[in-house]
Amino acid sequence: MHILIAPNAFKNSLTANAAALAIEKGLQQSSLNCTTECFPIADGGDGTATIIIQQLQGKLVSMQVHNPLGRIITASFGLIADGKTAVIEMADASGLRLLKSDELNPLRATSYGTGEMIKKALELGVNKILIAMGGSATVDGATGILSALGIKFLGDDGKELNNLPKSLTGLKSIDHSGIDQRISNCEVIVLCDVDNMLLGDNGSAAVFGPQKGADTDAVKKLNAALSKFNDITLQQLGKNMATVKYGGTAGGAAAGLYAHINAKLVNGIDYLLQLTNFDQSLQKSDLVITGEGSIDEQTLQGKGPFGVARRAKAKGIPVIGLAGKIPAADNPKLNEYFNALIAIGNEPSDIETALARTEENLIRTAKNTGEMLAIGKSAV
Amino acid sequence: MHILIAPNAFKNSLTANAAALAIEKGLQQSSLNCTTECFPIADGGDGTATIIIQQLQGKLVSMQVHNPLGRIITASFGLIADGKTAVIEMADASGLRLLKSDELNPLRATSYGTGEMIKKALELGVNKILIAMGGSATVDGATGILSALGIKFLGDDGKELNNLPKSLTGLKSIDHSGIDQRISNCEVIVLCDVDNMLLGDNGSAAVFGPQKGADTDAVKKLNAALSKFNDITLQQLGKNMATVKYGGTAGGAAAGLYAHINAKLVNGIDYLLQLTNFDQSLQKSDLVITGEGSIDEQTLQGKGPFGVARRAKAKGIPVIGLAGKIPAADNPKLNEYFNALIAIGNEPSDIETALARTEENLIRTAKNTGEMLAIGKSAV
Repeated sequence: MHILIAPNAFKNSLTANAAALAIEKGLQQSSLNCTTECFPIADGGDGTATIIIQQLQGKLVSMQVHNPLGRIITASFGLIADGKTAVIEMADASGLRLLKSDELNPLRATSYGTGEMIKKALELGVNKILIAMGGSATVDGATGILSALGIKFLGDDGKELNNLPKSLTGLKSIDHSGIDQRISNCEVIVLCDVDNMLLGDNGSAAVFGPQKGADTDAVKKLNAALSKFNDITLQQLGKNMATVKYGGTAGGAAAGLYAHINAKLVNGIDYLLQLTNFDQSLQKSDLVITGEGSIDEQTLQGKGPFGVARRAKAKGIPVIGLAGKIPAADNPKLNEYFNALIAIGNEPSDIETALARTEENLIRTAKNTGEMLAIGKSAV
Repeated sequence: MHILIAPNAFKNSLTANAAALAIEKGLQQSSLNCTTECFPIADGGDGTATIIIQQLQGKLVSMQVHNPLGRIITASFGLIADGKTAVIEMADASGLRLLKSDELNPLRATSYGTGEMIKKALELGVNKILIAMGGSATVDGATGILSALGIKFLGDDGKELNNLPKSLTGLKSIDHSGIDQRISNCEVIVLCDVDNMLLGDNGSAAVFGPQKGADTDAVKKLNAALSKFNDITLQQLGKNMATVKYGGTAGGAAAGLYAHINAKLVNGIDYLLQLTNFDQSLQKSDLVITGEGSIDEQTLQGKGPFGVARRAKAKGIPVIGLAGKIPAADNPKLNEYFNALIAIGNEPSDIETALARTEENLIRTAKNTGEMLAIGKSAV
């Protein structure tokens, strides 16, 4: 039995890599006679670029960038395809993980540092840029990125606005005259891990603002700022940032890049699995084990384990999902993609205890999974 | 694949019967091609007599007895073996479940009602009595049972002691002259679910007193009372209640019956499995699924799932254990008996939530177990 081990990261506890290794270790400890391949995945969330660079044996480029609050930090991006494609993790320059919780401030946080990485990639001569947008600290509609690329956001008096995105409500026009021309000849692809749109109750400010530090008032202000940004954009370019699918990704950064530098917004997991030749590994497998911190109906909205399971099912290969949290009741919609869903916890416990035990729980659960497969295999 | 489903009760949530049915339901919902037999088990804990009476299709006898605090209640016991063997659940007359939590008072609680059931069984002509002792509210060393059978506990002045077990510290002699003679011709077997001895730090008062309502002071008094009881017993009968294995069961009731009516103290699960011809069902099975609220190293001290697993292992039949709580780390000692141990919870949660979901969790976990067995079975 050849088992393909393709988990997502377990948020706040294990990277996808570490999760895959834990599952492999458990299977190896079991009495199941099997071979395994670790194929950690990512769906556009923080860590996606790392996975792509690792799978495609890319090279890393380190550089200094401005973090979301303007401090200088070192960030890095990858080059694949003989240096012709850059793979950028937005969170590396503009991520939540770069700030302390009391520093979170999406009215002020900027994606400028991600724009600096794009500029650097252009200088290195790439003709394609992949941006994984998960885990950003920003709700700036990519105004920071676009500023770094030379686009100017002007107010009443034709003067450039400072303090983006807070000042966007005073936006009067957008000046593309200084844009780095190299971006026009470069294909930009944004890997999205959510399918929210830009504005409204289900938009980037309302849904993701709070986890980035926005209170109710800030959410309103951010939504108004993005709305103004969209109005002016629509006027000038005829492109509607509010109706593009995935536009709400990374605080509207996806929508901003779509409208202003013609970026293509794609489902992160599907793009990654295609890029990394997942199907080739799938072809050789009798079983796929995937996993994520939580697997539920939301997973079917395009999360990593769904992308994996859908491809496996298309080839008739069974899928086992391991997660810290699954629905209590058997779920027919999930059953279409997962033959078995197993919660890895060992006992009733608080979330902190459970998170701290993720690796141990994964190893043990994978071992027991192996044992059950072995019992089934030896049955008459 | 023929699966024997033999769980213990899941304490505070599901009877062994209900647990077995939940597991069976889950397996039937799975795509595994299997036949099943439900064989709920018990290891001497509250519910053991019910299981025995059910498995051996016994008849119930209802009667009025005194509960641990002297109130009249209706209790019942079973008759098996053509009415020649009585099966008594001590908890039915003297159980924790009969009292409110603010009524718990082991210095006062008496096992008298269980003695009344024994007397009634003798009147019906039995020659064998099985007593399952789990879940008692008493720490009276069986003085209540023995009183009901005509034994007198005398104090300084040769007067009968009232207020047992509290008054036992004033015990001077034990008078067997009024004992119901029929008990001498009757085999009494006590099914024990713990192997604690009568006295000391690991004794019945210290270990089980607190859950029966004893505070530190009461534990000391109860231990002193039982110690005095043993001193006088040893003097008069030459039998040492303090050294007999299982003597601490049910607040020393096991030790009291051992010394004064020659009861045989046995491991509950082994006795039950033999009595109910468990091996006959085992013989036909390719897999055993057992379970209990918690499975850990203590389980190997003679709990139900251990009795089941040990017998299955002796025949080379694989065993899967399902439990609300298992050790986080893989455990070599448990691995000797359980091929796979699966925690049934669906997410990190408090214990109340987990208990309320036991049935749902068992059904879902059993279904997923079936699916994994099916995947293994169909593997090349």
